[in-house]
Amino acid sequence: MESKKRVTFDDIAKYTNFSKTTVSRYFNKPDSLTAESQQIISDALEKLDYQANKVARILAVGKTEFIGVIVPEFYHRYYSELLNQILSTYEQFGYKFLVFVGNNNKEGERRYIKELLAYQIEGMIVLSHTIPSQELAQLEIPIVAVEREDQFVCSVNTDNYTGGYQAAAHLAQQQCDLLIHINSPTPESKPAFGRIQGFEDYCRQHEIPHQVILRDLDRSYEKDQAILIHIVDDLESTCKGKKKGIFLANDTTANTLLNLLVRRYGYLPQEYRIIGFDNAPTSREAIFPISTIGQQIELLAQEAVGLVVEQIRQRKQGTPLSAAPPIHKVIPPILFCRETTCKVGPTQVLLSSPAGTQSNRA
Amino acid sequence: MESKKRVTFDDIAKYTNFSKTTVSRYFNKPDSLTAESQQIISDALEKLDYQANKVARILAVGKTEFIGVIVPEFYHRYYSELLNQILSTYEQFGYKFLVFVGNNNKEGERRYIKELLAYQIEGMIVLSHTIPSQELAQLEIPIVAVEREDQFVCSVNTDNYTGGYQAAAHLAQQQCDLLIHINSPTPESKPAFGRIQGFEDYCRQHEIPHQVILRDLDRSYEKDQAILIHIVDDLESTCKGKKKGIFLANDTTANTLLNLLVRRYGYLPQEYRIIGFDNAPTSREAIFPISTIGQQIELLAQEAVGLVVEQIRQRKQGTPLSAAPPIHKVIPPILFCRETTCKVGPTQVLLSSPAGTQSNRA
Repeated sequence: MESKKRVTFDDIAKYTNFSKTTVSRYFNKPDSLTAESQQIISDALEKLDYQANKVARILAVGKTEFIGVIVPEFYHRYYSELLNQILSTYEQFGYKFLVFVGNNNKEGERRYIKELLAYQIEGMIVLSHTIPSQELAQLEIPIVAVEREDQFVCSVNTDNYTGGYQAAAHLAQQQCDLLIHINSPTPESKPAFGRIQGFEDYCRQHEIPHQVILRDLDRSYEKDQAILIHIVDDLESTCKGKKKGIFLANDTTANTLLNLLVRRYGYLPQEYRIIGFDNAPTSREAIFPISTIGQQIELLAQEAVGLVVEQIRQRKQGTPLSAAPPIHKVIPPILFCRETTCKVGPTQVLLSSPAGTQSNRA
Repeated sequence: MESKKRVTFDDIAKYTNFSKTTVSRYFNKPDSLTAESQQIISDALEKLDYQANKVARILAVGKTEFIGVIVPEFYHRYYSELLNQILSTYEQFGYKFLVFVGNNNKEGERRYIKELLAYQIEGMIVLSHTIPSQELAQLEIPIVAVEREDQFVCSVNTDNYTGGYQAAAHLAQQQCDLLIHINSPTPESKPAFGRIQGFEDYCRQHEIPHQVILRDLDRSYEKDQAILIHIVDDLESTCKGKKKGIFLANDTTANTLLNLLVRRYGYLPQEYRIIGFDNAPTSREAIFPISTIGQQIELLAQEAVGLVVEQIRQRKQGTPLSAAPPIHKVIPPILFCRETTCKVGPTQVLLSSPAGTQSNRA
């Protein structure tokens, strides 16, 4: 990238022999010029390598091409992966992303959003759960919520109900005696509530003994681990000998549970089958790759950016945001069958040390 | 957050009985007003809850308060954690971050940076390695590089040499017969090259048998796993029975190695001691918490933002960026002693199943 002197309207006018007014019209009212004149100026721009002063353009046409993204935290890799996929749409849509991490600071999040609005950002993608959608809707800019309460704004969500249903069905197919769902207390307004509902409905409809355990999870690895140790201790005293199919609310807690079982037994006992939710990188990189109800994260990001860009377009054409009810797109989940439910073969085989390399364990 | 009609200069003028020119001066030339007048307008603004139109302010005073952040990828959680900590400085410094993920697309990165400059961003924090610092320096805006080649721009880095040295010393203290460092081929211009140097220097100075294995790692869990399986197979045939202290270039590959050893043996054999680098969340959340040479990620982020903000300040006071040579701040690493080197007790104890819960393994 070379450092270049900025090309001005003057330079373009001199080069093309048009007046500065004509050059300015090219940017702000291109239809007022003939196609031929537009072509001449466009060629000149390329020749002169015009570095558009975008800030001036913002004032002229109200177009910042900025979208705010509010991420709740980075403990769950679902969020870093979703952010990764959102940022990667730059090549496709050209929008730039102002990113904020909430870390449960509701007031900080409000202040940040207020500031973003002063910068005339064009839209927002909100992944955090702190601010109610009714309040977001009053901001009167295009907003897309992803996997959070979304009554009053557009959203893109995974079909969580089907995901929970599939998780239960998959565990049932593994001949589990008892199905267990472990989650944080989840309000019905959150899409993720569907995971609990889907799980329970499948179990009821198929008359499978089941249990939903709600604990204050999803805070940190160490805190989640302490909670899960208690749950496992309980299960081992109350459901001894039963084959337990455990559906965790996300891959992060599924990994924490898997780790503590493997630490306890040296392997994942057949008595425990585990499935997570998200298909976050965590699930593939675990000690034994974790079966999971996959969210199609790349597709969610694509649809979220697409939906906010579509709202921006309509608004520029003069359609007020409130003209139509919010759009709620739903993306189907995909089951990934991995070693914590199906392919147990290699797990067990690898446990016996290769001949000769290890002897202090016989 | 309530939706509010934007307060204009007109409103402020009416409310204060000043002329619009006086109100405008308050924003653009405050020194031309008496302290008393400034106070009156300031009070009025608060009363009227003036939503500053920041875009107009950008043109007036050239201050966008935007910093661009270029992240290479999110496979290594070091980067998502560093981004998390950079974003979290918003409360302290007030700067907003435009984030881009490079994913090894050098041309895309160039285009994005060029576009950012057109938006008059005030500075950049560059974590990706693709664009040489000489080229970055020519952009003539405040730039801070973190853990990448930094000859021509300011930077904040961990003391990688000391880190590599400490890693070797720590493994030597665990009575390892052979020290091994596994890394990707790393150019000398990258700070991370110091990890190799520090490791080698310690081993040479203390006459410890050692080996540096350079492979094309850090691409994906699956690819890294395949490479590490080969390395382990080699070690098991050539260094059988020797206690091997392995220093991995980062926690991500340390975790991949740990997983494959635990899969093979059901536990981490005493014959292998493992230490990583970064203190990324991965190291704490592994099947056995991984010892690591910790980068002080929060401090790195603080110093990086602080250094770019300081350059912005100086530049506004008229000091050209080229007036002083680039500043290179160095942050000491911190050793985290965990189960893959020191505290092996619980690992082994937990392997024996708690009485009665498991019988098919005796």
